Amino acid sequence: MSWSRVAVVGGGLVRFGELFESSYEQMAHGAFEAALASVDLGLDPGRIDAIVLATQRGTLWGQEGIGGNTVPSALGLAGTPCTRIENACPSGADAFRIGAMIVASGVHDVVLVIGVEKMRDKSTEEGLLSRAAGGHPVYTRGETAPVLFAPFATRHMYEHGTTPEMLAAVAVKNHHNGSLDPYAHFQSEITAEQVLSSPMVCSPLRLLDCCPQTDGAAALVLTSAEKASEMTRSPVWVAGFGMGTDHPYLHEKSSFTSLPATVSAAERAYEMAGIGPSDIDVAEVHDCFTITEILDIEDLGFFEKGKGGRAALDGDTAITGRIPVNPSGGLLAKGHPIGATGVAQLVECWWQLRGEAGPRQVAITNGYALQHNVGGRGSGVSVVNILTSRSP
Amino acid sequence: MSWSRVAVVGGGLVRFGELFESSYEQMAHGAFEAALASVDLGLDPGRIDAIVLATQRGTLWGQEGIGGNTVPSALGLAGTPCTRIENACPSGADAFRIGAMIVASGVHDVVLVIGVEKMRDKSTEEGLLSRAAGGHPVYTRGETAPVLFAPFATRHMYEHGTTPEMLAAVAVKNHHNGSLDPYAHFQSEITAEQVLSSPMVCSPLRLLDCCPQTDGAAALVLTSAEKASEMTRSPVWVAGFGMGTDHPYLHEKSSFTSLPATVSAAERAYEMAGIGPSDIDVAEVHDCFTITEILDIEDLGFFEKGKGGRAALDGDTAITGRIPVNPSGGLLAKGHPIGATGVAQLVECWWQLRGEAGPRQVAITNGYALQHNVGGRGSGVSVVNILTSRSP
Repeated sequence: MSWSRVAVVGGGLVRFGELFESSYEQMAHGAFEAALASVDLGLDPGRIDAIVLATQRGTLWGQEGIGGNTVPSALGLAGTPCTRIENACPSGADAFRIGAMIVASGVHDVVLVIGVEKMRDKSTEEGLLSRAAGGHPVYTRGETAPVLFAPFATRHMYEHGTTPEMLAAVAVKNHHNGSLDPYAHFQSEITAEQVLSSPMVCSPLRLLDCCPQTDGAAALVLTSAEKASEMTRSPVWVAGFGMGTDHPYLHEKSSFTSLPATVSAAERAYEMAGIGPSDIDVAEVHDCFTITEILDIEDLGFFEKGKGGRAALDGDTAITGRIPVNPSGGLLAKGHPIGATGVAQLVECWWQLRGEAGPRQVAITNGYALQHNVGGRGSGVSVVNILTSRSP
Repeated sequence: MSWSRVAVVGGGLVRFGELFESSYEQMAHGAFEAALASVDLGLDPGRIDAIVLATQRGTLWGQEGIGGNTVPSALGLAGTPCTRIENACPSGADAFRIGAMIVASGVHDVVLVIGVEKMRDKSTEEGLLSRAAGGHPVYTRGETAPVLFAPFATRHMYEHGTTPEMLAAVAVKNHHNGSLDPYAHFQSEITAEQVLSSPMVCSPLRLLDCCPQTDGAAALVLTSAEKASEMTRSPVWVAGFGMGTDHPYLHEKSSFTSLPATVSAAERAYEMAGIGPSDIDVAEVHDCFTITEILDIEDLGFFEKGKGGRAALDGDTAITGRIPVNPSGGLLAKGHPIGATGVAQLVECWWQLRGEAGPRQVAITNGYALQHNVGGRGSGVSVVNILTSRSP
């Protein structure tokens, strides 16, 4: 594959949380301003010649056609091309992948990738996730996210001896990391006892095995290798990316201990980057539930299938561990504003590779960071992006 | 701008209409099969390595995260990367633009661009367009599409002397063209008298000034210049494309006789293609209402501002006219299944450039066809794509 290297020259986000006081447009603007301010040699916003927006907001606000025209105007960029990507939980990660290909195509020079989601302004029953799960004539009603992920936990326990204590260790680690992240929704430590005594949501997943519903926005600025040096002294590069899909129905699944969409997304991303899992210094992965992080770190090749359960318990995925996972706090503590999630994970990767992650900073030895989301009906879609601090 | 030429090697659609008997997935599959069958040297579907899906279906079926995982599986392509684009009425046109950039980036070789929309399975009150217009805390309730376009007709009449007879001539022409198109929702001629006596919807727009709500699906296959010769003897090329945006609120508009998003999209597309409006042999433009086609043909540069009203009445935009507009029947007669519309317009352009449009065939002298959509809140987003039969 021949393609021109793409640089990330800016990134930022708003603090995730229940942002009742902030509109969708205000959150978008906050993330945009933060990303612009982070471009160390400066960037005239007029140079942005395309926008890629990740959002699932449509329904929640009664708006189907959203983003292509409302977001540029809200950012002071009316006139600029803007494409909305919606791809379930990987929406933000996919917007980044599309943004990178737009730059690599040579058609646009400076691309803003922005993810925004308003999750909390409706009741749980009326909210985005409930409506996502109901109403289809074929898909079963009641297939909420915990219901779709719980069987994977049950089966992983059955086949590989994974325990509730191992699940709890993932939540404890990520809430610890969140306590170090000023952008996280939850910034308090929790204990394994708290996880194991929290209310059962869908056995074996308890409340603290689940990520919250969170408002948020995050943004990144991409440009060509030629333009990057005008904007930053320390560019980070897009090393590779991949997307995978799968059958959407649970009865079509060949396994309940692995997500094939993640496996194929990762294979493609590693191949494009010319590296393997052992080259990754830090990973931000999709921990919508504790079990999901365990599936992820196996499917991404950091641990053998069946060995991921022990990783958090043994400290292997801690900030100081062999392969730090979710130093930002992950979806469990930082939050999961769907369109913004992947973009914010990439901002964390960008900070980590630049050595700007403060108390969450991991050791960067090879210069590679990996970002991952998986989601959609039956976890049928996944995106993996790999960033690097190594010059092309 | 340096970019690698991209080829269109296949295209097809299902007949547009009220397809109650066909599911979303069946329509998608029908369009995919038609596009595959049109690849004259054949294409193994396994060579498709990325999909770009245009759809606004989300809400209508209670599904937010749709397409990225459900459509590949429905096409027998589970595993293949798939990105959903939602960009209001230009969704299909934008998906094509993104697909072209994906090929040009060098990351993917063979890209399926597919647009699908199910518009008729809900009542008008519960349907996609009603829900798009309601529910936002700021946007005014009741701002349905006719309400948003009628002031443009009123003002165009006031400033330029455009008459109801001129609007009616657009509908008469496009329904005539639709009578020649086996894929059109409406395939009957209508008279000016019928248009002028049809019920008033929003003055001065009457029922036959408005496009219908239609189900449909359309698909195109894109590939690189290098690969095109393996698949077809008569490739058509992507000459250029552009997107423009605008402020979404009517009170922010500087004019009610022009759509700035169309003007900037066209400028960008012409510049990329290195041509001007007089080089275009045939155009498929966004005639959601009769007045919209008049605005379009002025904003795209085919007629001076204020002179577009007479075009259909004088026969200038007929299949045999100076610049044939909407030979397929346009949105008015062929229909407007939102995500599919732009893709289907591009299939028509592809047929016209290959001389395969049968009784609708226009004279191709320069070898350029233009496709255009405009939409979203306040007509705030537009996409123009230009295809050519001229070799790179």
